[in-house]
Parts: sequence; structure tokens; C-alpha cells
Amino acid sequence: MAFTFPQKVLFKHCDPAGIVFYPRYFEMLNDAVEAFFDAALGWPFEVIHAEAAVPTASMQVQFTAPSRHGDALVFEVAVQAVGRSSVTLRTQARCGADLRMAVDHVLVHVDRDGRPQPWPARVRGAMEGVMDGPE
Amino acid sequence: MAFTFPQKVLFKHCDPAGIVFYPRYFEMLNDAVEAFFDAALGWPFEVIHAEAAVPTASMQVQFTAPSRHGDALVFEVAVQAVGRSSVTLRTQARCGADLRMAVDHVLVHVDRDGRPQPWPARVRGAMEGVMDGPE
Amino acid sequence: MAFTFPQKVLFKHCDPAGIVFYPRYFEMLNDAVEAFFDAALGWPFEVIHAEAAVPTASMQVQFTAPSRHGDALVFEVAVQAVGRSSVTLRTQARCGADLRMAVDHVLVHVDRDGRPQPWPARVRGAMEGVMDGPE
Amino acid sequence: MAFTFPQKVLFKHCDPAGIVFYPRYFEMLNDAVEAFFDAALGWPFEVIHAEAAVPTASMQVQFTAPSRHGDALVFEVAVQAVGRSSVTLRTQARCGADLRMAVDHVLVHVDRDGRPQPWPARVRGAMEGVMDGPE
Repeated sequence: MAFTFPQKVLFKHCDPAGIVFYPRYFEMLNDAVEAFFDAALGWPFEVIHAEAAVPTASMQVQFTAPSRHGDALVFEVAVQAVGRSSVTLRTQARCGADLRMAVDHVLVHVDRDGRPQPWPARVRGAMEGVMDGPE
Repeated sequence: MAFTFPQKVLFKHCDPAGIVFYPRYFEMLNDAVEAFFDAALGWPFEVIHAEAAVPTASMQVQFTAPSRHGDALVFEVAVQAVGRSSVTLRTQARCGADLRMAVDHVLVHVDRDGRPQPWPARVRGAMEGVMDGPE
Repeated sequence: MAFTFPQKVLFKHCDPAGIVFYPRYFEMLNDAVEAFFDAALGWPFEVIHAEAAVPTASMQVQFTAPSRHGDALVFEVAVQAVGRSSVTLRTQARCGADLRMAVDHVLVHVDRDGRPQPWPARVRGAMEGVMDGPE
Repeated sequence: MAFTFPQKVLFKHCDPAGIVFYPRYFEMLNDAVEAFFDAALGWPFEVIHAEAAVPTASMQVQFTAPSRHGDALVFEVAVQAVGRSSVTLRTQARCGADLRMAVDHVLVHVDRDGRPQPWPARVRGAMEGVMDGPE
């Protein structure tokens, strides 16, 4: 069961070629992940960052088709694997049935000094629930 | 022989955790690639984009250590492979000897309708010269 | 009658001091204006920019209090005056009753060569309706 | 005597209309001010932000002409007035002789709780030196 995050392509996202400038996709991606932690895991970024962080460690990205100003994108965030202090997500952005971007990305839970920390049990349970849940 | 692009970590790049927010790395990466096309290939983005584009098709990214405000990063852009209308780059950002980010990325030369176009012979030659040149 | 646009302060908006980095306010402001043209005037930016533009000519900005990650901001966009090809807006961003930013800004309708163009009659009427409407 | 900061207009700065998207001007402006504090005042932002901040309190902005991809802008930062804990700057961005943007902006030196703090004597002296110096 993926978490879905709608994002219209706005003026600010687009480049002189009239399509999304790829660093703006990563701002959208971060917004989607921030909403996922808030709404699906019950652990908002503004709470996490009081004492910790969840930086991205690695990403594999495919840009499969361009997106244009006004396109109604939907980001689907799915949990692929949950480690002790990491989580592997697969996020896909589509406009209707058309895939625009697919990312496999690994996030790590770290303390303020950057040392990996285990996920809180409640958060880990919520991640596993998202992963295992029905479509 | 890699093309080098210096980039101090500025206030605008950093997040509430005091480290570079990863979408900002991709703005730096795009600046490094834009400078590479201008200075190393003699084909500035503002000339290319009059009638074409060089969008990124895919990326594999490792964030190996955080970067902090004031760090003097150096981006090294190296050509890995040159195709008919694509090029594979490996870009690494370091602070001194410390690797911060490594990206394998593929760019494609397309016309205004997004159809792949062969590299101009002069540009292709410059890419191959960068690839084969001495360190 | 002001048009309202909600915007939670997200991770991407905040700087190492933990507050909104002021260039990000202008991205929010542009989003608020883009939503205003779409929802209140029935003239979406993606339609406008097929053949014209509405660049900002001037702004007077007061940042009255800092905004923090997680704050639930509301932008209120009000029409102050409608000219032949310009419009003066006053936009205020609040968190609850607390004013965070106030902007008086002038936008101009221009063609692709940057020459001022009169507002379409329907758009002008919608602007005047917003200006004159009940609170 | 103004402090000058060169900034080529890059791909990332430009919108679908092919001109600088105005929130990007404020990122350039912040970079110019960050360079001014570092090079002209000897007080780098990364040092300031260890225990304080210099947020912008107000701005008056005129966008006098559009800037295009590849334009070689020069930002001139001039000190207009120095208060106990504030400074009024006038920054103008030009391409050759052509004025593109002019900003009168007020910055305030605050501690971590946002309370105004007097400028360090050395910094105040440097500001006054910049203001009074020969062209």
C-alpha cells in the first residue's frame, strides 16, 4: 500500500525548456517524504528534527518522461525494506498512467552527531504496516 | 582528466540540521555540469537551449558524508562514456580529501520535441578528449 | 475579500537558524499568486504563459516575525488597485493571528516581447470583483 | 564604494519565459550579501551563525528589466546607513550599464532568540569604512 502525495507542476518548478528542472523534483520528493512521515508514520519532520534527522544516503533515479507546467502529478511512496536504522523507499511520480520519475532511495535515522540510531518501535511498526498492508 | 568546479557551501544550501539539504546538491551539480559544457566543451547551456536541451535521464547517487556551511567543496566532472546522443558522467564532490557525494549520471541531447539527437561532432570530440586526456 | 492560500512551513523552507529562509517566502508568494490567478481569476499560469507573462515589477516587503518549521501559515492575497495592464496586490502571511510577512506587490501583464498588454476584460472583471467583494 | 559580486545568469535561475524567476534573484542577493560580509566586513556567515543571525527585516525592490540566461550580472552592495543593530543596504544588479534590479534592504543583527544585538565594534567600523570610502 503506497502513500500518495499529489503535486501539481507549478511555475517555480519549470525551466526555460518548459519542463520540470530536475533539482525541483527532489524538492517535491522531499515534500512527499515529509508528508509520508507525518501522515503515514505519525512522526512529523518538525518533531524528528528537534533531536535527530533522517538524511538520504543513496538514490537511484530514472527520469522516464518530462513533466510540464500544469501537470497533475501524484507521488506514490512505498516501503521496500526496513532496517535497524534505515529504510528503503521506492517513490514513483505519475501524471495519470504516465510514469515520469522513479526513485529507489535509502534514508537513515541519525542523531545530532550523525550516528545511526534505531527507529523508534512505533515508527518501525508503522513502516512495516505500510509495507505489508493491502493495496 | 576531470573538470573541476569549486563551490563553497553557502547559507542557502543548508537545512535546519546545519548541513547541505540534498536537493541543493543537485543545483550545485547542475551548475558544475553547466560550467563543464561551457568551459570544457565550448558549448554553453544558453547556446544549447536556443534549440535543444540536455536533460538528465538517470542518476545513481551516494551521499557519503554531510557537508557544512563554509565547507570548500570541489566538484570533479569526469566523462565515463560517450554514446551517439548520450553521455555518462561521474561527478564527485569533495572537501579536501573527504568524499561527500558521488553521482553517475546520464545526459541525453534532445531537440525541442524531446527526440534524441546526435552530439555535434565538435562536442563529441571534446568529450572524448576530456575522457582520454592525462590526469 | 482576500483569497487565502494555506502553506505549512516545510523542511525545505528553513535555514540553519531553523527559520524560513527569506527567498523561500517568495517561492511561497509566487505559489499563492499562481493559485489566486487559477482559483480566483480563472486564468491559470500554465494558460497565461503559452503566450504572455505576469512578471512582478516592484515589491515592498516587511518581515515582521520569523516562521518556524511546522508553522501553519495562511497567505491572504488582496487586490488593492487594477490598472490597464497592472495590478497591485497586498499579500499577508499569518500563523494564527501572528503576522509574519506583508508584501505590496505590483504585477504587469506583458506579451512575449515584454510589452505591457491590457488585462482581458474577463480577468479585469474578476480582479475588480475580488477587490469589491464582501469580507 | 560599493562591494561588487559577479553572477552569471544560470539555467537554474530561469523560468519558462526564459528570464530570471524573481525568487532566484533573492538567492543571488543573499549570496551577494554573504560575500559582502565575508570579503568586505571580514565576518563570514558561517561564523556569525554559530551564535547569531542577520535576518532581513524589510525590502523595497524594483525589477527594472528582465535578465536572460547567460547574462553577466554584477551586484553592487552599498551601505546606506548603520544603526546600533541594523544596517541599510542598497544593492543594484546590472548587466553592463543596464539596471535589472534595485533593492533597499534592512538587515538586523540578532541573537539566537531573535533579540537585536549591537554590531561588534570591528564590524561596525568596517561597515562605516565601506560607506565612507572613495568610489
